[in-house]
Amino acid sequence: MSIQVQGVDQVFHGQTVLDNLNLTFEPNKIYGLLGRNGAGKSTLLNIISNRIPATHGTVTLDGETVRDNDAALGKIYLMSEVNLYPERARIKQLFKTTQLFYGDFDTTYATKLAQAFGLDVNARFSKLSTGYRTIFKLIVALCVPVDYVFLDEPVLGLDANHRELFYQELIETYSNNPRTFVISTHLIEEIANLIEHVFVLDDHHIVVNGEVPDILAKSYAISGPQTDVETYTSGLNIIGQDHLGGITAHYVYGPLDDNRPIPDTVKVEHLDLQKLFVSLTNTKEEAAAHVN
Amino acid sequence: MSIQVQGVDQVFHGQTVLDNLNLTFEPNKIYGLLGRNGAGKSTLLNIISNRIPATHGTVTLDGETVRDNDAALGKIYLMSEVNLYPERARIKQLFKTTQLFYGDFDTTYATKLAQAFGLDVNARFSKLSTGYRTIFKLIVALCVPVDYVFLDEPVLGLDANHRELFYQELIETYSNNPRTFVISTHLIEEIANLIEHVFVLDDHHIVVNGEVPDILAKSYAISGPQTDVETYTSGLNIIGQDHLGGITAHYVYGPLDDNRPIPDTVKVEHLDLQKLFVSLTNTKEEAAAHVN
Repeated sequence: MSIQVQGVDQVFHGQTVLDNLNLTFEPNKIYGLLGRNGAGKSTLLNIISNRIPATHGTVTLDGETVRDNDAALGKIYLMSEVNLYPERARIKQLFKTTQLFYGDFDTTYATKLAQAFGLDVNARFSKLSTGYRTIFKLIVALCVPVDYVFLDEPVLGLDANHRELFYQELIETYSNNPRTFVISTHLIEEIANLIEHVFVLDDHHIVVNGEVPDILAKSYAISGPQTDVETYTSGLNIIGQDHLGGITAHYVYGPLDDNRPIPDTVKVEHLDLQKLFVSLTNTKEEAAAHVN
Repeated sequence: MSIQVQGVDQVFHGQTVLDNLNLTFEPNKIYGLLGRNGAGKSTLLNIISNRIPATHGTVTLDGETVRDNDAALGKIYLMSEVNLYPERARIKQLFKTTQLFYGDFDTTYATKLAQAFGLDVNARFSKLSTGYRTIFKLIVALCVPVDYVFLDEPVLGLDANHRELFYQELIETYSNNPRTFVISTHLIEEIANLIEHVFVLDDHHIVVNGEVPDILAKSYAISGPQTDVETYTSGLNIIGQDHLGGITAHYVYGPLDDNRPIPDTVKVEHLDLQKLFVSLTNTKEEAAAHVN
């Protein structure tokens, strides 16, 4: 019982977008799929939901390919930036269309959510602002009866109040009716406490794949006078650094050396998820800007 | 020496967008201008920068109106969502055009920033992604020789790495060359440590106007068993609440009652800026969703 992505490559016009991806989405779990702009997150989500074919590799749901498999695809929903809705349709009509398509739809919850978010269900889709188009798509994603919900940039254009309301409703609907959510977003710190497992996609590869507490447990910020920090972190997996005034911070991903005493001048703390992500995925030029 | 917004009203098609706004932007200071989607932030910025006229009221720079005043407007720059650039032009040409228009432009810094952000200065504006259009506009805003820089949604579409780089460069250019920055954004917590003074625009009015440390000093989260919390906060200015398991949290903006002892079961902490904002500006429906 899971979605398995196996050996997936994607090549567009001779350029590698995804290179041999292998990952698993288990039932009833909340995932984060993180990556920089252009890292290939949306491509991966489009492959999983059968919107585009992979160049190589397979995506299976409970062992069966999802490719053109209506039974499997009926269990997967992708909320994406693309608007696939008839512009003239009214919101309440679109709720009904979704119900016809999926055989079921939580209209009661959709109505409650529309009220909480201030979405007018009589409005036409074409008349909605960017923020309210996102809200409409979010509501559909939370009310559609599927086992796997993929959310690509679910808070795009939302103000802080609407983001908070979304996170809260996501936890509530997940508690009432466990299923799998995969959240792809640039607002990493805001979902750090929501997600159980994180994938980081960088340079066409999965570079982090693990449970969030385990990942954070081996992510460190080590700060203090430059020489002391450099001596202590020498040989460790340094993924980034900052200099502010006389203080140097080295960011380390991976085990510390238990045999090495921590100097009194040096402070060892854990990184938060966003800082870990930024350090792991910075380009050389960006990393250099922190040192200058 | 300041920008003064005095008695500004804005009415569109009979609807009040801004109602009697009075605010001051002093030299060499970093401000946050916060508001929900649709609160009128962009309208206010467009009035200040003379892109649209106010229905009533005045905006002055050092005592002189900015309305159609080229000398004053040469000291103000607004980076906005609207793209005012010829689509076919190349980035480096656009840097030159800005230099001609403003008489000066920090081309050295612009080139350094383009490199740090990975922006190709030979690319045509029309070929840039949403994120890179924002980056181009940010670079112009940081390099243009003006006293007042207004940034409307400066991190729209940027990934976490580019946001971090922008915040860092903003601090650096501000330290090297102090001037006024006014940042309007939905990513409130990310700028909370950058801004000195905050304005919150809600329901057509300025509802918060103060130095950030002062504002946060009188913002509280009071949590514990429901009855104890309710007893302690009774009569205080409660702006929001949350319930999680058996714990109730009340959010209070304004002074506590020094004569009231804090029960042992109750925890008093300060709110962060984003949570304060959300609580102050939630609609009734949103507030209700926190209680259910």
